[in-house]
Amino acid sequence: MGMKTKNTYSDAEVGFDIPALPGMDEREIQTPCLVIDLDRFEINLKKMVDDLRPFNVTLRPHAKMHKSVDVARRQLAFNNTVGICCQKVSEAEVFSRAGITDILITNQVCDAAKISRLCGIAQSGCRVTVCVDDLSNVNALATEARRQKTHIHCLVELDCGAGRCGVTEPEQILELALAIDGFSSLTFDGLQAYQGSIQHEKSYEKREEVMGGVISQVNSCVTSLRNAGLSCNVVSGGGTGTFLLEAASGIYTEVQCGSYAFMDADYGRINNQTGQRLDQGQWENALFLLTSVMSTAKTGQAVCDAGLKVQSVDSGLPTIFDRDDIRYVSCSDEHGVIEDKKNKLKLNDKLRLIPGHCDPTCNLHDWYVCVRSGKVESLWPVSARGKAW
Amino acid sequence: MGMKTKNTYSDAEVGFDIPALPGMDEREIQTPCLVIDLDRFEINLKKMVDDLRPFNVTLRPHAKMHKSVDVARRQLAFNNTVGICCQKVSEAEVFSRAGITDILITNQVCDAAKISRLCGIAQSGCRVTVCVDDLSNVNALATEARRQKTHIHCLVELDCGAGRCGVTEPEQILELALAIDGFSSLTFDGLQAYQGSIQHEKSYEKREEVMGGVISQVNSCVTSLRNAGLSCNVVSGGGTGTFLLEAASGIYTEVQCGSYAFMDADYGRINNQTGQRLDQGQWENALFLLTSVMSTAKTGQAVCDAGLKVQSVDSGLPTIFDRDDIRYVSCSDEHGVIEDKKNKLKLNDKLRLIPGHCDPTCNLHDWYVCVRSGKVESLWPVSARGKAW
Repeated sequence: MGMKTKNTYSDAEVGFDIPALPGMDEREIQTPCLVIDLDRFEINLKKMVDDLRPFNVTLRPHAKMHKSVDVARRQLAFNNTVGICCQKVSEAEVFSRAGITDILITNQVCDAAKISRLCGIAQSGCRVTVCVDDLSNVNALATEARRQKTHIHCLVELDCGAGRCGVTEPEQILELALAIDGFSSLTFDGLQAYQGSIQHEKSYEKREEVMGGVISQVNSCVTSLRNAGLSCNVVSGGGTGTFLLEAASGIYTEVQCGSYAFMDADYGRINNQTGQRLDQGQWENALFLLTSVMSTAKTGQAVCDAGLKVQSVDSGLPTIFDRDDIRYVSCSDEHGVIEDKKNKLKLNDKLRLIPGHCDPTCNLHDWYVCVRSGKVESLWPVSARGKAW
Repeated sequence: MGMKTKNTYSDAEVGFDIPALPGMDEREIQTPCLVIDLDRFEINLKKMVDDLRPFNVTLRPHAKMHKSVDVARRQLAFNNTVGICCQKVSEAEVFSRAGITDILITNQVCDAAKISRLCGIAQSGCRVTVCVDDLSNVNALATEARRQKTHIHCLVELDCGAGRCGVTEPEQILELALAIDGFSSLTFDGLQAYQGSIQHEKSYEKREEVMGGVISQVNSCVTSLRNAGLSCNVVSGGGTGTFLLEAASGIYTEVQCGSYAFMDADYGRINNQTGQRLDQGQWENALFLLTSVMSTAKTGQAVCDAGLKVQSVDSGLPTIFDRDDIRYVSCSDEHGVIEDKKNKLKLNDKLRLIPGHCDPTCNLHDWYVCVRSGKVESLWPVSARGKAW
């Protein structure tokens, strides 16, 4: 896919419509604002491809994390990358309209209007796959796909421990797979088996142990389907915390990592196989929330302009990049309080925060300001920001 | 101000650009989506005005909560309402461009580009007030206002317990007030004295006790300024949790409530003077996060389509309106898990969630779908959504 994006900013006001202009110094960027450090981002994209090379799996990066057509295009430029994942129909519409031709919605689509739109995406020439865990939903998908003279691929979602959507029993999986297989407007492709709740577990050994159980659960399901004459061409799952385990399993065919491209403070804290933190040599922090100091009225603290409206703190507060002398200690709607024991910070000083959780943080912003060597190189819109339908 | 808004949706796709169309039934709205129940909303607006009638204070509703020009216009239609509060320059630009002529930014504006834009708002004919807690910032504001041949009103921010921005000592306040008073491009109007950290305290008695201390702190400051020849024409503060205390103080001149218009689950839980919860007879829940059931694959639970990307859970999980038989028990990026012990919920059932915290939840959405008696009456854009600069 093309790597060039044309951005015109002729009518845009910096500070109202956009936070910066290409060519600016990083310190001129209007804050609070998301910044992608392009050198670091590019290292992450390449590293994931290198990490997966020994294994017989393809990569289908999750676009729910970044919601950016520009990021997705760069991910799809690698040979091993087959398409993207989305989580919502409106999100998939953004990416398919931008020319991406293979999208897996790792979620159930049940509402009639959404099913109709989903089929519309397939109808426009995109290969569309969706997850199912309900027989009536299979019927509804088949009926609408037939009505629109199009075709939908289906994965049966196996709940492998997250306790959310998905079925758990081999007989339920078989029943759904057979139902899908019975409709000419649908294709049974295989299984969605993403263990979301273990991704952020700090201990590698614990993640390995849990994934061991998941992999044998997936193996049983694939075997029982094969015995019924149904083959799983696709077994999809895996996130930044576990993907090497899925990749090495011999049963997963593709991994769905998202956060590796940007990283965040919560993933940074978990350990790899050698006990090393993921943000130390494994993945680069490439996404920053740039913030400015806006009050130094109190001794020992500073207040910055990045609060709850520009970051999600569900997975903890942000950390401050490259500074161990100061600490982000509390957060309100529009402010962050920074402990600054030695009163080093001055009004308008800029800091790079590492967000606690990248996905819901990115979804709060309209723009990524892309910097290289301290200069703004380009602006990428958060194309599917707010596309929650 | 005019109450009519012209909305044209000719090119908008329901489910991509907008979540609904006027005339639709509530059950046809695409979810997850914010809904304003107009009857309830209108009761809240009128009740606030009625509650303030016995007191010699004006109302300056905080628009950072709703970020909506349509909501602000309805608030400004009442006689006692003098203008609005904003928290950010880009937010103030949205409201001033929509014709609102009196805006207090309850925050420091320190960055040079932002100061320039702030003066631009004043220059366009809007009365602009900003808070200060730093002498160099006073100088910068004065210089830029003079350069743009305009005028900025200033409040000195008193930190009355939130421990964030603002100064605490009478001599610091006096020094700042005198500095402001010395510039012809600035006017010293008085004090910003908002005690944000006590608003959500459950016990009325505790809130009353803390505000008693704040009110005497404010009184001392006003007296010491008066002794120095500076009068406070404005003492501004108060939120939904405490505004009647500020209103009755005899020293506050205006209150800045925001959440009362919509309410949320966290404010709903706090008690008023008679020990009654604020959501029981005091304020109506008027803002809902409409969600749909998307999986019933597990016995005893359902999964809905409203997770972290459509609500902020910093102040707790949402509650479910008018249902005590089911409970929203956990939240991930795109999903909510609902405990449904009796398996009452069916696929595509819709539920009205009451968000835990309205301000950062509203900031995640592009639209308010306004309903009355189960029908969509209009759509209001979240005009200043994402305006964080």
